Amino acid sequence: MAANAQKDKKMVTEITAMDEDFAKWYTDICKKADLIDYSSVKGCMIIRPYGYAIWENIQKNLDNRFKALGHENVYMPMFIPESLLQREKDHVAGFAPEVAWVTHGGEEKLTERLCVRPTSETLFCEHYANIIRSYRDLPKLYNQWCSVVRWEKTTRPFLRSREFLWQEGHTMHATAEEARAETVQMLNVYADFHENDLAIPVIKGVKTPSDKFAGAEDTYAIEALMHDGKALQAATSHYFGDGFARAFDITYTSKENTLEYPHQTSWGCTTRMIGGIIMTHGDDNGLVLPPAVAPIQVVIIPVAQHKEGVLEKANELKDRLAAIGVRVKLDDSDQSPGWKYSEYEMKGVPLRVEIGPRDIEGGQFVVVTRHNREKTFAPIAELEEIIKSKLVEVRDGMYAKALANRERRTYACKTIDEINASLTAGDGFVKAMWCGEEECEDKVKELTGVGSRCIPFEQENISDKCVCCGREAKKLVYWGKAY
Amino acid sequence: MAANAQKDKKMVTEITAMDEDFAKWYTDICKKADLIDYSSVKGCMIIRPYGYAIWENIQKNLDNRFKALGHENVYMPMFIPESLLQREKDHVAGFAPEVAWVTHGGEEKLTERLCVRPTSETLFCEHYANIIRSYRDLPKLYNQWCSVVRWEKTTRPFLRSREFLWQEGHTMHATAEEARAETVQMLNVYADFHENDLAIPVIKGVKTPSDKFAGAEDTYAIEALMHDGKALQAATSHYFGDGFARAFDITYTSKENTLEYPHQTSWGCTTRMIGGIIMTHGDDNGLVLPPAVAPIQVVIIPVAQHKEGVLEKANELKDRLAAIGVRVKLDDSDQSPGWKYSEYEMKGVPLRVEIGPRDIEGGQFVVVTRHNREKTFAPIAELEEIIKSKLVEVRDGMYAKALANRERRTYACKTIDEINASLTAGDGFVKAMWCGEEECEDKVKELTGVGSRCIPFEQENISDKCVCCGREAKKLVYWGKAY
Repeated sequence: MAANAQKDKKMVTEITAMDEDFAKWYTDICKKADLIDYSSVKGCMIIRPYGYAIWENIQKNLDNRFKALGHENVYMPMFIPESLLQREKDHVAGFAPEVAWVTHGGEEKLTERLCVRPTSETLFCEHYANIIRSYRDLPKLYNQWCSVVRWEKTTRPFLRSREFLWQEGHTMHATAEEARAETVQMLNVYADFHENDLAIPVIKGVKTPSDKFAGAEDTYAIEALMHDGKALQAATSHYFGDGFARAFDITYTSKENTLEYPHQTSWGCTTRMIGGIIMTHGDDNGLVLPPAVAPIQVVIIPVAQHKEGVLEKANELKDRLAAIGVRVKLDDSDQSPGWKYSEYEMKGVPLRVEIGPRDIEGGQFVVVTRHNREKTFAPIAELEEIIKSKLVEVRDGMYAKALANRERRTYACKTIDEINASLTAGDGFVKAMWCGEEECEDKVKELTGVGSRCIPFEQENISDKCVCCGREAKKLVYWGKAY
Repeated sequence: MAANAQKDKKMVTEITAMDEDFAKWYTDICKKADLIDYSSVKGCMIIRPYGYAIWENIQKNLDNRFKALGHENVYMPMFIPESLLQREKDHVAGFAPEVAWVTHGGEEKLTERLCVRPTSETLFCEHYANIIRSYRDLPKLYNQWCSVVRWEKTTRPFLRSREFLWQEGHTMHATAEEARAETVQMLNVYADFHENDLAIPVIKGVKTPSDKFAGAEDTYAIEALMHDGKALQAATSHYFGDGFARAFDITYTSKENTLEYPHQTSWGCTTRMIGGIIMTHGDDNGLVLPPAVAPIQVVIIPVAQHKEGVLEKANELKDRLAAIGVRVKLDDSDQSPGWKYSEYEMKGVPLRVEIGPRDIEGGQFVVVTRHNREKTFAPIAELEEIIKSKLVEVRDGMYAKALANRERRTYACKTIDEINASLTAGDGFVKAMWCGEEECEDKVKELTGVGSRCIPFEQENISDKCVCCGREAKKLVYWGKAY
């Protein structure tokens, strides 16, 4: 045990402590848990097999939800001609400054520049103009999984990189009501996915007008609080009204034989969610993964594996778990158990099963939950039920821990001074009333450092007055420092 | 029946007949079966939901095969700095003339141009140089699903477009033998997938030196014969030796503690396979899809659906098929059965189930196989077994038909004159002996119009002499006109 503890310690010191330097702790985990690597392509990252397997699980779980609601996947070109990007005025103003431009094909200069898609509203709209004719063609519920490019100046793995992976849903509806309902429905899908699959509690709300997506009438978002008290916008859902439809001349003939503009939404989430998982659940021993997206849900580590019967029993446990659909790995390499404990803690594997000669003799195994390091002895005969219930317990425990952190760091404030006083305890969400004026929004940020995150669906009345100007308050707003 | 036949005919005339204009027939199917659409992005295509669903099935079936052999998925940046592309001399010579160049990020001119990846050997090699240290790190078995760009002058949907979707496997091995075995293993995976899942018979072989991938020591390929007698290179697998490892300074410490260069492979297949499906199996009524990748395997069409009990029974059949994992759709729209028959024939749905009041009374249903339009009456009680066996029968029938077409159009020739005489009957594969000289390869093409496709693994001795120069023959070669 002493030797193992020693080795544990050695591994642990390989990453910076969270409290010492959160940013460095974060990038240490990205590297040490084998999630990413850097390359000579500045501002982009390599997503390594362990990181990509998390993304594949995210994709699968979200894609199932999208398809169950009738969405279909498509693939649009990765390039957008400059003239097409310019068709909707607000949209081009928002994106043109941060796109990568292709100017040459082979040896030839292109007659028109193409940007690498930063998002694909314009391409979808051009296509919709071709294929939407009648009310029978509506709704169109399309989604696309792809990579997009935004030429960011400062980049960090998963959180902000010049290229990232995402999905972008683009839908067209006969009426504004239907389109609004879709916008909110998809926000709820994201919220459900975050809370259940990622064990990340989120605030659902609408962005203030100054913070809307370029070209949208309303932008909805889910906001999560990271371990350091900073906010992460985890996914967004936009309602466009018929603005793009007008700009792209998309019309349909209604049942009453009139010509109408359809109403549009788009919604997206990205590899940034992996950053959210790290910063919500990780600790000084490394990554902590929610079971629903963990590439390995259970790692089995044989103890004294050279002894007769140990590897046989370990393999038997593995086969039993694989048979019920658990993602299980048996590590029978010649590293010491202590080394393996640290390795899979770093990689955030939710459950560790230990099995040695004495366990076998007693008909039991040991299971350790990563998020709180609790150790349980359990009968081998009940392996399947115990592992299944432990996986649920882990998700629930991770969610409760994250929620407690958020609640501990959420400050209800009535004045600017209260905000500043609260934030001396550390960053977090500030709940405060707002009059609805952009001027006050800017001033809060200037005086306190926290910007508006969203106007939550679940409104409370903390005060009747705006936290900034003291005039009549219209809405409760969540404020915070954002990633 | 007369009315339906009329409607069938009307639908059928919407596409050009195959014998009249094969190229137009092909693009008609791409459009009318809702596989693709065009956009203002020249040379690129939109893959619509029905086309993309085929691709998703291809991906799933191939990805399972790759992972079962130990491969892991990763994601590399989509850009390659010009200096990185230039690290391997043959590689850059092959690709630089046909890449898209990004020269500006936002408003700023980049200090170094970036190309949009045409393939990712250089990126994988840069990464491998970082992560391979010891023999314990080998083999590295990586794969990537992504889109790539090659600035083609002439484009056609699926077959040749400026952007296309693909997977690219990149592996590193301790020895040349292991790497060669991987190259052949992956070619066999592609061949197995084509023959079993896509019902496309293929010739496995190695490319002649003049036709190798830029930077490879050997390029293996599978070649299929399309309905018009032209050949399609359906997938390739490359053996690189240690050429890239030397250019990128990738070394590992062997068990014997010596410093060695690892040996490399890459292998890929693309959305071009969808073009191969169309041109192998399609007919004048539209697409014909192999069951393994068909988005809808069975379409149920109720007859006289307004009559009591018809829709209930149709729904019951649907539920029973869905329960055994069949991808089934019930079309209860208000279109006529005749319209629906044509629609799903155009979309290539392998099986059509018809159910009407008289069928229900007799306890039977009708099943029609798309590829040969054979109609069978079968007892409702045996639905599951019958559909399962029909799906196998369809795959086997499609394969046999494609194989018969290839055999009918494969000509064994001993002289240039024999080649020219054979080809008057129409394009096809020519089997002829070759001395191994590039000069003869070029001359055969010049004199007959058919180029070397591959040197097949299954060699035959048609003659002792080269078909061109008459000197001693070294190999049997397949020749053909290529897409």
